[in-house]
Formats: sequence, structure tokens, C-alpha cells
Amino acid sequence: MKAVTIVDGELEWADHPDPEPGPGELLVAVRAAGINAGDRLQQKGLYPAPLGSPADIPGLELAGEVVAVGSSVTAWSEGDRVMAVVGGGGQAELAVVHERCAIRVPDDLPWDSAGGFAEVFTTAHDALFTQAQLGPGERLCVHGAAGGVGVAAVQLGVAAGATVTATVRNHDLWDRVGDLGAAVVDPSGFIGVGPFDVILELIGAPNMGENLKALATGGRISVIGVGAGAKAEVNLLALMGLRARIHGSTLRARPLEAKADAAQAVIRHVLPLLEAGRVSVPVERTYAMSDAADAYERFGAGSKFGKIVLINGAAT
Amino acid sequence: MKAVTIVDGELEWADHPDPEPGPGELLVAVRAAGINAGDRLQQKGLYPAPLGSPADIPGLELAGEVVAVGSSVTAWSEGDRVMAVVGGGGQAELAVVHERCAIRVPDDLPWDSAGGFAEVFTTAHDALFTQAQLGPGERLCVHGAAGGVGVAAVQLGVAAGATVTATVRNHDLWDRVGDLGAAVVDPSGFIGVGPFDVILELIGAPNMGENLKALATGGRISVIGVGAGAKAEVNLLALMGLRARIHGSTLRARPLEAKADAAQAVIRHVLPLLEAGRVSVPVERTYAMSDAADAYERFGAGSKFGKIVLINGAAT
Repeated sequence: MKAVTIVDGELEWADHPDPEPGPGELLVAVRAAGINAGDRLQQKGLYPAPLGSPADIPGLELAGEVVAVGSSVTAWSEGDRVMAVVGGGGQAELAVVHERCAIRVPDDLPWDSAGGFAEVFTTAHDALFTQAQLGPGERLCVHGAAGGVGVAAVQLGVAAGATVTATVRNHDLWDRVGDLGAAVVDPSGFIGVGPFDVILELIGAPNMGENLKALATGGRISVIGVGAGAKAEVNLLALMGLRARIHGSTLRARPLEAKADAAQAVIRHVLPLLEAGRVSVPVERTYAMSDAADAYERFGAGSKFGKIVLINGAAT
Repeated sequence: MKAVTIVDGELEWADHPDPEPGPGELLVAVRAAGINAGDRLQQKGLYPAPLGSPADIPGLELAGEVVAVGSSVTAWSEGDRVMAVVGGGGQAELAVVHERCAIRVPDDLPWDSAGGFAEVFTTAHDALFTQAQLGPGERLCVHGAAGGVGVAAVQLGVAAGATVTATVRNHDLWDRVGDLGAAVVDPSGFIGVGPFDVILELIGAPNMGENLKALATGGRISVIGVGAGAKAEVNLLALMGLRARIHGSTLRARPLEAKADAAQAVIRHVLPLLEAGRVSVPVERTYAMSDAADAYERFGAGSKFGKIVLINGAAT
């Protein structure tokens, strides 16, 4: 097979042996695979692939058709359309997915959206609900709300009955984020529209001081992105006075059973929303998988609404 | 009545009008009242009394006999022995306690231990279980373990089936903390005996960097004391990689219903342990309430095992 391949920090479209599905695993012909921040960090040599994943093939999410199943697989068969989070290796013609991590692709969902669904919706769902326990009537602030995880989080917050404020730096994207049901503000002004019960932090350390000032009593800050910096100064006395908590989380480093747990939660709680049209996967642009270098560059430039997705062949 | 009274940062034993119990409240003749860190901050003018509490009478916990009940009180009557967390005003001859915050004093518990029970055991129970969800088989580290909250936390951790490590600066206190069931180490060496699932932070910001290094995947840090400093540098990337969280909490600032919630949890989950002798309230020293200034000085000097408690008359 061919796969996006990291060679000395550059991306090539190179030959690899076909992967083989082990017990409980599916071999998937990948139609589409989204790009995420972890992929770019891996490309730059800053984020080695987790144990058990290909060292040089990035790709944390994919969608495609099952073309073979390993022993003891019971729930899936050839021809099934699946989407999934994987530890790596998703940006290839073929990839292996554990059956407990596979999510059925709704019939009318195009491949590009399916390829950009799993990582961002699993991450957002896990951060907002499993960790921060967002509830109806609560006030949610999503920082960096126009990107893949941000768009997912805004929609999930709205669907869960929260009042959602979205910070978006590029004002050209405000209308599209607003159409998802959020009140959109510039990052410089979010304190003025607080306090918030839950703050989803996708930007990093520079926001943390103001986050604590904008947090309600009993509030939760969930940190899942630190592109702008990781070393935060936290006023512990303020945290105590608010009886608040700060979560940190990442999906990529989790062991199989934890990824499967998160996938099953998405199947139960997010797939019905996707099928009902209450959440969607906006795709800013697709690229052929052989043009991954251009696609990564576009991803890194920011100012996008939703996902950048790599596709194999005429995937959409 | 007479009460410990803050006058220009000094403590006097001064006259006040007798408090009167409102609906749902008990008037308690205070036999004993423990000293806590919040009292000293209030004395120094750094921590104003919460709304609804006397501005100039410190005291966050007390034990004594009910001498009158307000209207609509059903569960208590004159002569009942109670202990409780209050927002302030506990270090006096008389104090008012809401009936939902009152905890029955076990028959064989001396007054000095009863007076030092409520604040520290409620704080420790809330931090370890309600917040950090400590479970059996987990590894707990208690920083500053020889003090009032620390001694409570070590005992609750042991009773809950956790493996408890205690950091204690004064080596003269190691044997007594060790007798509670903890492995005692110097604060400089706790990283070497980690990782820990839960870390109870009673010291403050200077420990936070090492706390994150000593934390297990999925770990929780519960911050309930910042005597050594409040501004911590937190590596958010480390927090994400560990899928960990940091709680902050304080009991004193909570509204009545939240204090009552915490008291009811203590009645259900800690009182049985106290009655069974599985946890105790070590008292380092008692002082007459009229000698509060000396008692506060002793409290501030540290290097004590358990509580400093003020008593009225021959309370023990």
C-alpha cells in the first residue's frame, strides 16, 4: 500500500507493506482521514507515535470500508463503512482498527465528513461530558472554536442544552460559528461575557489566567490543546475559592481499552445526534492523500472552519 | 457572652451579645473549638469572615451542648452533644449552628477531640472522596501530614484501603504519623516513592511542579492549603499526557447548603469510623479560650501532631 510517510520531517507518499488485521481487528480501505494537531507535532519530531502504531505514518482518525477481518471479530464484516480513532497510521490506503473502536458511518454521511469525525467529536465529547460533566443550563466557553475540535464542542454544547460562547480570532469565521448556535466573541473579550461553568481550552497557557477570572463557582477548565504554550501560571487560591478544577487530557496516548471506552461513549451519545442532523462535520477543504504536504501546510495556517481532510481517490 | 475577638489584629477575650437561634438553628454552649489556618488569616486581616458570620469572632469548628433551639428544629433538643463546621464565631461561649450542619458527638469522645473534629475531617473527606474520588488500592500522598487536616486525611485514606504516603518536615513527628498507617517520608523525597493516584496538597504552590512529576496516569491533585504560596507554575502538557486533574477547594466560603451537604456526608461516612475507633482526633495541646493569643501563636509555630483546641472551663 501507499501511505503518508514522515521522512526527515518531510511528508512523502511512499510504499509500505500492507498491514494485517490481528485478532479482533478490522482491515480498512481508507477513504478519508482528517488532519489533527498531533499529526503536525509528529511530523516535526515533537510527538513520537504511541506504542503499537506505525512510527512514520501519521493519521489519528479515518473512515473507510472494511476489506478483511481478523479472527474473533463478530460485529463487523467486509463492506461495512466505519470511522474510528487510531493511535496513528490513518493517513494511508489501508489501516487497522480494533473492532471496539469502530463507529458505523451513517448512510448519508459523505466520506470526507466521516474521515474528519472521530478524533474531534471523541475528544470534545470526552472533555465536555466524561471529564467536565457539562450539564443543561450551564454556561460553556470554547476557546479556538472555529477549528475541528472547537466546532464539534460548540455543537455538542448546544445539543446538550448549554449556553455556548465561542472565542474566534478570525472575524471572517464568526458567522459560520454563530450559525452553530454559539455567541461568538473575540478572544480579548470573553471575560466580559462570563462567568462560565465549563471552559474548553484549545489554545493553551496564555489563556489560563483569564480563564480562572472568568470561571464560575464550581467551574471546570478542560485543557486539550496547548499550541500557544504549555507552562501556565495558576493561582491556586483562586482555584480554591471557586472550588474549581482543571482537567488535562489527550486521546492519542490512551491505551486501546481507553480509546474503546471513548468510542463506545461516542456511539451511544454522539452518533444519534449526527444521524439526526443535530451535529455535523464541516470540512474546510479536502486534499488528495498524495498531497499531504500541502494539506498539512493549510492546516497549520489556521483560520479555517472545521476540518482539513485527506482523501484517497474520488472519496466524496 | 464572652468570645475570642479580633481587635486591630490582636485577640481579646471580650463581651458580646448572646447570639439567638433563628428558624432551623441550634444555640450551642461551646465546650471546645479547634483552631484552623483560616482563623489565623482572618486575624491578620487577610480573610474576611463570610457573609452571615460574625466579622470579629473567629472559629470554624466547635463542639458543645445544645442549650436552645430555634423554630422548626425537629432533630435536636436541649442537652444534645453536637459538633459542627461554622462560617465563623465558633471560638466563643455561645454559637449558632444550623441543624443540618450538626453532627452528634459519640458518647465516649472527649470534648477537646470533638471540638477539633469537624473542620479537618470534613475538609479531608470532601477533598479525598467527593472531589478526588480516592478508591481502595490507590496510592495517596498527603503533604503536611502531621497537622490537623493531614492527620485526618492519612487516617481516612488508610480506612478506605488506599496505600498512604505522608510527607512530614519535622522528623520528631514521624513515628506518630507512621502509627496512623502511613509510610512517612521527608518532603524532599516523595517523588522517589511515587507515582501517586491522589495527592493532597496542604502546603501550596512550591510543591506543584514535583506533584505533577509524581502523579500517575489518571491522577488527581487536590489543593486545600497554600500557606507556602498560591502562584503555581503548571505544565499543562504534562497534565494532558497524564489525563490528570487539579482540584481546588475550601470549606469556609461555601454557602449553608453546601456546608450541610458536606456535614451529611461526614455523618454517613466518617462518623461510623470515629465510633469504631478507626479514626481519631489527636490533640497536640489545649488552651483556655481566654488564652487564644497564646494558642494561635502555638498553632502558627507548626511542628505539631494534630490539633490545637480552645476550651471553655473544664471542658475535657
